[in-house]
Amino acid sequence: MKVVAVLYPDDNPDRHPDVAASTARGLDLAERLEADGHEMASTSDTGDGLDEHLADAEVVVTTPFWPLYLGRERIENAKNLKLVITAGIGSDHIDTSAATEHGITVAEVTDSNVVSVAEHNVLQILALVRNFVPAHQQVLDGRWDVADAAQEAHDLEGKTVGLVGLGAIGARTALRLKPFDVTTLYYANHRRSPADEATLGVRYARLDDLVAESDVICAALPLNPGSGALFDAERLEAMKPGSWLVNTARGAIADADAVRKACESGHLAGYAGDTWYPQPAPADHPWRDMPRHAMTIHYSGMTVEAQRRIVAGVHEIVGAHLAGEPIPEDYVVAAPSPEGES
Amino acid sequence: MKVVAVLYPDDNPDRHPDVAASTARGLDLAERLEADGHEMASTSDTGDGLDEHLADAEVVVTTPFWPLYLGRERIENAKNLKLVITAGIGSDHIDTSAATEHGITVAEVTDSNVVSVAEHNVLQILALVRNFVPAHQQVLDGRWDVADAAQEAHDLEGKTVGLVGLGAIGARTALRLKPFDVTTLYYANHRRSPADEATLGVRYARLDDLVAESDVICAALPLNPGSGALFDAERLEAMKPGSWLVNTARGAIADADAVRKACESGHLAGYAGDTWYPQPAPADHPWRDMPRHAMTIHYSGMTVEAQRRIVAGVHEIVGAHLAGEPIPEDYVVAAPSPEGES
Repeated sequence: MKVVAVLYPDDNPDRHPDVAASTARGLDLAERLEADGHEMASTSDTGDGLDEHLADAEVVVTTPFWPLYLGRERIENAKNLKLVITAGIGSDHIDTSAATEHGITVAEVTDSNVVSVAEHNVLQILALVRNFVPAHQQVLDGRWDVADAAQEAHDLEGKTVGLVGLGAIGARTALRLKPFDVTTLYYANHRRSPADEATLGVRYARLDDLVAESDVICAALPLNPGSGALFDAERLEAMKPGSWLVNTARGAIADADAVRKACESGHLAGYAGDTWYPQPAPADHPWRDMPRHAMTIHYSGMTVEAQRRIVAGVHEIVGAHLAGEPIPEDYVVAAPSPEGES
Repeated sequence: MKVVAVLYPDDNPDRHPDVAASTARGLDLAERLEADGHEMASTSDTGDGLDEHLADAEVVVTTPFWPLYLGRERIENAKNLKLVITAGIGSDHIDTSAATEHGITVAEVTDSNVVSVAEHNVLQILALVRNFVPAHQQVLDGRWDVADAAQEAHDLEGKTVGLVGLGAIGARTALRLKPFDVTTLYYANHRRSPADEATLGVRYARLDDLVAESDVICAALPLNPGSGALFDAERLEAMKPGSWLVNTARGAIADADAVRKACESGHLAGYAGDTWYPQPAPADHPWRDMPRHAMTIHYSGMTVEAQRRIVAGVHEIVGAHLAGEPIPEDYVVAAPSPEGES
């Protein structure tokens, strides 16, 4: 059996010992696999060089941080493929319909980094609202202009935060925002119970109302056909003038050019997040040098602690597959219909 | 009567309407004072140019963000001075003993920006622990090196945070950290009640124990003779290797050169805060270009919302003084002994 892991590149052997989701370390899978007579390859090549590996791989490990865009054509050419694992959360880079039609299971390490991303949401909300990046830049530039830093700096206290999505990450974000004395609205496909809403300190709102009323919007929903370019020019225009948008969910949930224009005009007081489309973001991606941004590269779910959990989860999934056992249900994103069903 | 306000400079008339604690706006005091036949001057000159004003001022308004260092000699030369107001919190830039000996009351706008600074504490703790600044810099530099960003990035969850000081700011910081699932230790002169400790999610520790056990230390105490250079080379050395230090309290609580050395060696994984000594920080202050910092200029308590509260509080204090009424007790930092007492 051959396992191919498509991971972020790293040729530095002196990294923190838990930074194991790289090509250099290959999630520490090789030793285990090779001991059982299996084959393992790690690569950061998501282009032509990969297709050779895909031709005979039974398992492919991918990550959202350095995504392999696994569309229908590639899936059809991967004749031996049985299992695609996302080392992390969010398998939108995989055409799951094409996968299941070809007998391929898609799994991810559910919950592995939901706390990590929720923390990043709070960090980037505070960074935008409190005008951190320009106030830090003044330090580097040898300046001390209090008026300039202060005029765009606000307290989060008393603001209305709108969470679009209230799944594992959104709920953890809400809980962390609660003691900041904010009003937290949420929009989701399914309304939570009154008990959940009280615990999280959130109130349900229709999407249009949330967009109109929020000072800060935080996207915490998966990318799917319904959420692609959800924040297009029209929806950005419907946001409050001077409001902030944080998107650690998926870059493609926002229209890149429309976001840039809204930051340039000042209609958006700021944009942050760590997800881009495509990834890795090209050096000329319109968000890299737009004004009013507090973006990071996509790493929020790749903290040292998250990598430990991700590596353990991938080992668990691969182990189940090798043993011919079912993959733990909470990891399964999409599975082929049992034979005979249609 | 003459009022002199020593404020951060600003000659831009197009600022946000609530950025009023600048020389350009003079806390909006002038109109009110001049209508009653009083004199008002605003200046950012904290040097020789100020002494002329001090010679005949009855009230001096100062701020921690652009401090006037009001020592004994200046106080002795300010023959008419009756009241010194800190537009903000923290009057360590004033020699309060010299002031009260000369019949001068020192007041500040208690509580005006405690939430603002508590939010900044959480922001800067998250920024350090999650390695925000280098991951943001990668965006600006056109890079996408996940391993490099990830190897210094951690979740706050599960870490031990040590709060040195648990006053108005420390307590609000603790409350906001509680849902992050951290262990929060605190050291303070007075231990809180069990009920307070439970509400804030904190546990008392002696200072040496707190320093030895904390992954992140956050200074939330006033500068006074006991806290000057509290974080000197020896105490920094006693911190865990790879721990983080946030100091929004006062720059002089940490030894500037020792902090720089600890950041350079990596013993400190990072240092943040927004207070410096002296202020404004000179362009060659050792913290401006040291590695691993997420500093801002001193503005955390100068958000738009904080400025509104500060301006209202200064008006209240000046109004009481003009009316010959006592200054509200919670604003008084130090007052001369009533006549006849010694």
